[in-house]
Amino acid sequence: MHILILGAAGMVGRKLTEKLVRDGRLGSRDITRLTLQDVVAPAKPSTTIPVELVTSDFADPHTAAPLVAGKPDVIFHLAAIVSGEAEAEFDKGYRINLDGTRFLIDAIRAIGGGYRPRLVFTSSIAVFGAPFPEKIGDEFFHTPLTSYGTQKSICEMLIADYSRKGFLDGIGIRLPTICVRPGAPNKAASGFFSNIIREPLAGHEAVLPVSEDVRHWHASPRSAVGFLVHAGTMDLAAMGARRNLSMPGMSVTVGEQIAALERVAGKGVVARIKRVTDPVITGIVSGWPRDFVTDRALSLGFTTAEKTFDDIIRIHIEDELGGKFVA
Amino acid sequence: MHILILGAAGMVGRKLTEKLVRDGRLGSRDITRLTLQDVVAPAKPSTTIPVELVTSDFADPHTAAPLVAGKPDVIFHLAAIVSGEAEAEFDKGYRINLDGTRFLIDAIRAIGGGYRPRLVFTSSIAVFGAPFPEKIGDEFFHTPLTSYGTQKSICEMLIADYSRKGFLDGIGIRLPTICVRPGAPNKAASGFFSNIIREPLAGHEAVLPVSEDVRHWHASPRSAVGFLVHAGTMDLAAMGARRNLSMPGMSVTVGEQIAALERVAGKGVVARIKRVTDPVITGIVSGWPRDFVTDRALSLGFTTAEKTFDDIIRIHIEDELGGKFVA
Repeated sequence: MHILILGAAGMVGRKLTEKLVRDGRLGSRDITRLTLQDVVAPAKPSTTIPVELVTSDFADPHTAAPLVAGKPDVIFHLAAIVSGEAEAEFDKGYRINLDGTRFLIDAIRAIGGGYRPRLVFTSSIAVFGAPFPEKIGDEFFHTPLTSYGTQKSICEMLIADYSRKGFLDGIGIRLPTICVRPGAPNKAASGFFSNIIREPLAGHEAVLPVSEDVRHWHASPRSAVGFLVHAGTMDLAAMGARRNLSMPGMSVTVGEQIAALERVAGKGVVARIKRVTDPVITGIVSGWPRDFVTDRALSLGFTTAEKTFDDIIRIHIEDELGGKFVA
Repeated sequence: MHILILGAAGMVGRKLTEKLVRDGRLGSRDITRLTLQDVVAPAKPSTTIPVELVTSDFADPHTAAPLVAGKPDVIFHLAAIVSGEAEAEFDKGYRINLDGTRFLIDAIRAIGGGYRPRLVFTSSIAVFGAPFPEKIGDEFFHTPLTSYGTQKSICEMLIADYSRKGFLDGIGIRLPTICVRPGAPNKAASGFFSNIIREPLAGHEAVLPVSEDVRHWHASPRSAVGFLVHAGTMDLAAMGARRNLSMPGMSVTVGEQIAALERVAGKGVVARIKRVTDPVITGIVSGWPRDFVTDRALSLGFTTAEKTFDDIIRIHIEDELGGKFVA
């Protein structure tokens, strides 16, 4: 089978590529061709599978058609600019996060002749906006408080409608905040949730800008890749017309994150977290979801790789630090 | 004040125009200029208010800019193709119902310099799709089962985001099915809800294609105009970031509609309803909302003109038939 990954150079895209190359298959089918696209050149994975690397702008109306001309069987659509950037650069956000998706689905539709690929779209819990219940259920409405969340919600609607019309076989999965996010911070205001784990484990100080009672919704990068693989292989008929759903995750407070870090890595590591309250970040985070009920995703077979936040830290140490950290 | 009505030649647009011309004001402010746009020429109302008639295609990228160049204070955006047509003509539906709205809000934003008009958008209960609860609440999610409902839901999202960013002061109101709809039937599958009242009152037979236990959500044309006027004048600050909401209405079964018709107009009129079951229409209607809880709209001052379905019939006789019907 031929797989196309849009946004392949991003953190989740790289991890998904690694997983697919390592397995050599998606579900029961061998991967015979892999196309990796991003606005910056994706790294060439080490594999015998034929890989095509494409550097192109997802917001360009001419980007999508050649990417889908080879009729990929499964398309993972991870291309987006993040919330902070979409908020600061209004037009750019709509061009990439909304228009780009429309160019893609219209290019798929234009092929016709029964071509109906699986399209896995990464949506976000940013489609929800405060005030909301303590636990957000599967039927709670979308009131995004950012342009990013608006764009994600709109793309969910489009993918559901194009699926209903039979132009593609789409699913949108709302990822929790990915924790521990490896590498350098991006422009997301949620960065500290990962920084306070990742940096101390690497021997560096990290700043905690909010109080320890802040509660948020997390999943490991390993879980995110697992969700994508499941979404790329499962039978979507069970979803009916409702093609978008919130993924399972873990609701913990910052205090619980820190307690887990102490259990896994010790007091010395935790001592590297410096508390410097930032009212702006505190304000932004106060409008974010804290907890979810994800019965629908669980019933459809989506599962996390972790049972506790300690597991999330251990997964980071295993997958990113070669099993070692700076005590 | 200057008012622009987009889609002014449609049924609701005509009734809104009549009301504004009759009152000469919107809220506490005199109307000094009225611009009426539609794809077919709107009728020139009889009034001393300066009226500009514009015939243009809402889906044309160049339509919106000249319409908003005069900086209308209030814009009523009623332009749309109906659900049946949007479903049959996929591209046309997206061009008019989605792209047209984006052209409009981007043209408003492009003016800048503090221009921030009130934008009243007519959305639809088609943003909801079965299965849903017996009564749909204010926080129920959007799972449209038509392209029309998808387009309306997307426009709601856009208007909320553009309002949040301060580019305009928008509100989206989800109208119930308008009953009794005057004039000739349009392409809507919901036509029979009005046909079974309007045609018998005019001395004609009408076909009832569904069973009498079908329940649906109605409001009179007079109520619809009242909602629009209220949305055009109320302080939207009370809505916060949640700029879209379901309007009040009346939930009745077809049997209750017919009983009301008999009370208002007698057995002879009711005898003109012929029962000819249509499985296609029955199937379509089975996926439609039946009842709502509209506490939010009520708390924001939206009210219907009718208390009973008998009132809805009387409003039709008063407003459309000069107080008389064919007994």
